[in-house]
Amino acid sequence: MRSKELQLGHGSGGRLTAELMEKVFLPAYSNPLLAQLNDQAVFSINGARLAFTTDSFVVKPLFFPGGDIGKLAVNGTVNDLAMGGAKPLYLSASFVLEEGLAIDELKRVVASMADAAREAGVEIVTGDTKVVERGHGDGVYINTSGVGVIEHDHYLSSNQARPGDKIIVSGPVGDHGMAVMARREGLEFDTPIESDTAPLHEMVAAMLAASDGICCMRDPTRGGLATTLNEIAKSSSVGMMLHETSIPVREPVAALCELLGLDPLYVACEGRLAAIARADDVDALLVAMRSNSLGEESVVVGDVVADHPSTVVMRTCVGGTRIVDVLSGEQLPRIC
Amino acid sequence: MRSKELQLGHGSGGRLTAELMEKVFLPAYSNPLLAQLNDQAVFSINGARLAFTTDSFVVKPLFFPGGDIGKLAVNGTVNDLAMGGAKPLYLSASFVLEEGLAIDELKRVVASMADAAREAGVEIVTGDTKVVERGHGDGVYINTSGVGVIEHDHYLSSNQARPGDKIIVSGPVGDHGMAVMARREGLEFDTPIESDTAPLHEMVAAMLAASDGICCMRDPTRGGLATTLNEIAKSSSVGMMLHETSIPVREPVAALCELLGLDPLYVACEGRLAAIARADDVDALLVAMRSNSLGEESVVVGDVVADHPSTVVMRTCVGGTRIVDVLSGEQLPRIC
Repeated sequence: MRSKELQLGHGSGGRLTAELMEKVFLPAYSNPLLAQLNDQAVFSINGARLAFTTDSFVVKPLFFPGGDIGKLAVNGTVNDLAMGGAKPLYLSASFVLEEGLAIDELKRVVASMADAAREAGVEIVTGDTKVVERGHGDGVYINTSGVGVIEHDHYLSSNQARPGDKIIVSGPVGDHGMAVMARREGLEFDTPIESDTAPLHEMVAAMLAASDGICCMRDPTRGGLATTLNEIAKSSSVGMMLHETSIPVREPVAALCELLGLDPLYVACEGRLAAIARADDVDALLVAMRSNSLGEESVVVGDVVADHPSTVVMRTCVGGTRIVDVLSGEQLPRIC
Repeated sequence: MRSKELQLGHGSGGRLTAELMEKVFLPAYSNPLLAQLNDQAVFSINGARLAFTTDSFVVKPLFFPGGDIGKLAVNGTVNDLAMGGAKPLYLSASFVLEEGLAIDELKRVVASMADAAREAGVEIVTGDTKVVERGHGDGVYINTSGVGVIEHDHYLSSNQARPGDKIIVSGPVGDHGMAVMARREGLEFDTPIESDTAPLHEMVAAMLAASDGICCMRDPTRGGLATTLNEIAKSSSVGMMLHETSIPVREPVAALCELLGLDPLYVACEGRLAAIARADDVDALLVAMRSNSLGEESVVVGDVVADHPSTVVMRTCVGGTRIVDVLSGEQLPRIC
């Protein structure tokens, strides 16, 4: 580790988070499941193939256009299960609450979680609550963990991308991060930006039914699409070539990114997925994805290539190319 | 809810925590698994019978005699699985870290978790890390969730106690809470008090092999033995009669409790269990428990009775009786 003290950037999902993983967590906990660095662990118990995942949520503010920390906590874990090809079934909910939190605010968060769980068809079956003194928290921190079942034979893992595969994105990127930033900075727009937080498991089920050519799926949360694709490129030792003109970004998101000096490729989504798929299967997959309301704007954004392994390159709209690196440092703290 | 704002006592594991559960969480998340209010949810997926549990840890200080937050986080979740009769298999580990935390301190916690996982025979297979700004955390908060498998036909639930059953405790109570308090208050003793944090699943496996007369098991953590037994008494609509002279409390723990004006019956254990068992099975159970190093001091501490349902009463050492109520308010904040 280059630093002796933890920095905000260690939670960004980018280079510092990866360093923390490689230097601190992986060596200590070493086991083959964790080493795959997927968003979920997949294992079999007495013949049942299961996925298991966890996520803590510290988003600030707690409420933002399109969602809140509770909805995010449910959808985030539902999506981490879905990205492993699992049907999400059971969630846990564990709270670290700050003394002085208004009970009515907690009730709003809890009601939102319950609504999101109902919408996603999962049950919150176990939980925990801890309370810390005023000034030692930030109202509400939530951990959700989840268990899902895998009922098909596809093997999905970030090390499965091969040259010739296509890179698909299920819709515009950066909505979630910019919705939170706009609220945090008190910025108002004619067209308000809403978080895209949503449960993706039904679209994933349709994709798996339509094709057996999916190599892996990831939801580009912290660190955005750029970081997610870099992780897959590294895991699979392949290169990637993105086409800038193909990457969907909503107009107000692009405008706010420009205003704040941010690159939408690094801004978190919470209801989008990136899929790597065999080229022959892309048409069938796009049909399946576009027939789901959350995937209507699905599009191919690039190719997996043999050149420049572990590196993501983008052909820009002016015709040049540039390297799209992992997020380094902290772009947007406390975004999920 | 009587209060409009969250108090520290809402995290105590006592009356206020129960009120939060009954008024906020249960109505929103309503489902039969959660409503059982066991320390774990038990369900079947494709024929595999599984237990699933979660716990967040905010203990202060992070390191204390006999353990640290990492060891506690592993053993706590291992034990919640074990109390449901499950063999613990897979754990998740999710961190909310505070900016400025020394990386070396984090490494110590992570190494301790890895050791505890190895000792308990579980793997940490998935995880997450978030970082919050200085002054919005307290160094390290950890959530662990766990999945275990149930490979027997016993039905264990806190609603299964019946009059005539016996109440067994696996060893002295209050060690963990008093070890943390002594360190927090800077108190030194000739005989230092050490936390009892330990994984109980092997003793539980031996108990289940020795007898099919166990009704339920609980590890008396926050709120201590008194609160745990009150919860079982309420769930099963039975009374309980404890014998004060039978309840094991180590001498230094009793002394420190007296000094601080605390009742050891309400002080957290992290390596003890309370079991309710049919009277005919008690001898076999005590043999099994005492043959495990963590249960050498196992003892019967009372009876389940038909009188005063939902109420725990204690026959005191001077021959009178007194009601042993649920912990009300906050006795020991941030104890786990």
